Amino acid sequence: MWTGSSPYEVLVSCCSGLGPQRKCLRFSGILTCQAGCVLEALSSFVGEQDFVMPLDLGAKGSCHIGGNVATNAGGLRLLRYGPLRGTVLGLEVVLADGTVLDSQAPLRKDNTGYDLKQLFIGSEGTLGVVTAVSILCPRKPSAVNLAFLGCATFPQVLETFQLCRGMLGEVLSAFEFLDSACMKLVQDHLKLTNPIKESPFYILIETSGSSAAHDEEKLHRFLQEVMTSSLVADGTVATEDSKIKALWALRERITEALTHDGCVYKYDLSLPVQHIYQLVEDMQEHLGTRAKNVVGYGHLGDGNLHLNITSPSHDPALLAAIEPYVYEWTARHHGSISAEHGLGLKKRNYVHFSKPAPALRLMWQIKSLLDPRGILNPYKTLPDRASTD
Amino acid sequence: MWTGSSPYEVLVSCCSGLGPQRKCLRFSGILTCQAGCVLEALSSFVGEQDFVMPLDLGAKGSCHIGGNVATNAGGLRLLRYGPLRGTVLGLEVVLADGTVLDSQAPLRKDNTGYDLKQLFIGSEGTLGVVTAVSILCPRKPSAVNLAFLGCATFPQVLETFQLCRGMLGEVLSAFEFLDSACMKLVQDHLKLTNPIKESPFYILIETSGSSAAHDEEKLHRFLQEVMTSSLVADGTVATEDSKIKALWALRERITEALTHDGCVYKYDLSLPVQHIYQLVEDMQEHLGTRAKNVVGYGHLGDGNLHLNITSPSHDPALLAAIEPYVYEWTARHHGSISAEHGLGLKKRNYVHFSKPAPALRLMWQIKSLLDPRGILNPYKTLPDRASTD
Repeated sequence: MWTGSSPYEVLVSCCSGLGPQRKCLRFSGILTCQAGCVLEALSSFVGEQDFVMPLDLGAKGSCHIGGNVATNAGGLRLLRYGPLRGTVLGLEVVLADGTVLDSQAPLRKDNTGYDLKQLFIGSEGTLGVVTAVSILCPRKPSAVNLAFLGCATFPQVLETFQLCRGMLGEVLSAFEFLDSACMKLVQDHLKLTNPIKESPFYILIETSGSSAAHDEEKLHRFLQEVMTSSLVADGTVATEDSKIKALWALRERITEALTHDGCVYKYDLSLPVQHIYQLVEDMQEHLGTRAKNVVGYGHLGDGNLHLNITSPSHDPALLAAIEPYVYEWTARHHGSISAEHGLGLKKRNYVHFSKPAPALRLMWQIKSLLDPRGILNPYKTLPDRASTD
Repeated sequence: MWTGSSPYEVLVSCCSGLGPQRKCLRFSGILTCQAGCVLEALSSFVGEQDFVMPLDLGAKGSCHIGGNVATNAGGLRLLRYGPLRGTVLGLEVVLADGTVLDSQAPLRKDNTGYDLKQLFIGSEGTLGVVTAVSILCPRKPSAVNLAFLGCATFPQVLETFQLCRGMLGEVLSAFEFLDSACMKLVQDHLKLTNPIKESPFYILIETSGSSAAHDEEKLHRFLQEVMTSSLVADGTVATEDSKIKALWALRERITEALTHDGCVYKYDLSLPVQHIYQLVEDMQEHLGTRAKNVVGYGHLGDGNLHLNITSPSHDPALLAAIEPYVYEWTARHHGSISAEHGLGLKKRNYVHFSKPAPALRLMWQIKSLLDPRGILNPYKTLPDRASTD
């Protein structure tokens, strides 16, 4: 008979009662913890046991693992370790009627009926409250390398990505990009230094592996190839922790630089990778001098563009020029209007650009089934009912 | 506005109309195909473009990708590429009322509301009929190595696994095991040859990577370590295709050998990896001479045991001694009574050993919502209603 209690103590905090946890983690790489644990604290905890969390975000110092799961957070390691839908093995969820739904089994495989926990991953708290999480942690890579490269054109960025996937293979752990406007923002507002010569596009490639010598050899061969074939104009490589952090800052601190540039209109879009930058160019042309800056950066390896538009102050006319243009463009190119940020309050009534009517109807049916009185995170995620009828 | 048609033609068969498919695959590694495509045909198709399917099964020559998705098939590559819940990016599903639910978007990230396709993955056709699939294919590894090793005890198998995960890291693609009784079955019934000296346990370790030299070096160091520390008693390594296939046959043909051994009672269990073989030993002791053979093998890297018990002919008394003993044992050790095979007809009324009552109630509520007249694969997966009330 199912007993409802796990042999692995749930983490009360990251500093106490962790004996059985450590043993479970060592054998299986599976961490079980309460939803309120901060991602960075969990990273340190599993790091001591030679594992890494399968997700990493800029907000790791303050975000909670329960929130990460509820929003299906993407982040910097998705390219390598896949989405939370594959790495979250179990959840404890409190339903709207107070029932505790426990599927905390720390198992990699479980095909006993419907995988109910998937309903709660990415549902933004509208179907239940996540209170505990079991998650599969990969082994910690012993070697990390970073390359920061400049490209003259976006097609060259794409070709570099294709080559990179083939030549770096299993050690590739991030492929990020930013345009020259992003670089200018971090230089102007945060006084960061561009370590290579000016280029229209910059790429950040990370490798993580179990052998420093092997990884460096793979990276070296790849860099030789992109330099001799003139795909890449200039570049630098880092293996030391401090230089790696400085290079990552150029990419990770763009959001912070944008807040210093004025009022920011932010879009998080998923697009077939070959169209990912065309939207930035079309938006620049569409808005002309009405915008202060139109910049693009993001997780190129996942087809995820962060499009940001700044203006000296809040500008309803500018916003009207951006929306629904940005959503129509995305729908025309078969993209998603929210890659990793979710719908929340602001985007819920634009969801029809990415989801057909039968899907919206089914979303509402599930919401009504699990939360008939609408008490869980109301006014979020689901579009107004009228639009789905 | 969401248009409902994809820019990528759906595979009608594996031999025609594939122009746009090839292009999409090359850029993103995403394959979109009809549900009736045979897994092996898809493997060949993506293989020509330098990709692999993220799943591989013994039944690949006859199973359909739609069925793989509907049953959330596990198989031999799960350890490396994760479950279908992470690699299936979109589905087209026909609901019980004839509605076509289309979420074919070939995108790695899409956080626009509830991820409805997850409802259908692993629901064994009881909620809708999968008619098309988008799936993310990893790059094809250019080098594959196989090691076949013998261990004297199961704790040594576990220790070898721990060491292996650290030393082979990102190139480890399979860690399978079989006991000496399985080896005897394939020798006796299929005339296969044991390539190493007799041992109580055998391990099959596969590496897949982008550099033959690097992978061989990693494997060599690992083998040196397990041999000098006496974790492993004997072993052989294969890099040629024919020898690799011969070694895989020792593991993959166990099921076939079992059918020659008499009536087979088959169990597919998920357990915390440290307890995985204890069930086989306890079952041997529990059944004594009543069983002809009690053997264990499986995907050790995933904590997935295939426990098989043979008898000269159908034996209700033997079955009564096995069940519910096997399910009670599994529940006591916080395992799952179906790791990758699903519940189907035979196991649906044992699901309470792995799922608590609130989960069973919610399963029935979802079934009633999506298939109120019970016309989709009736009498499967869901337990009798009385047991959930």
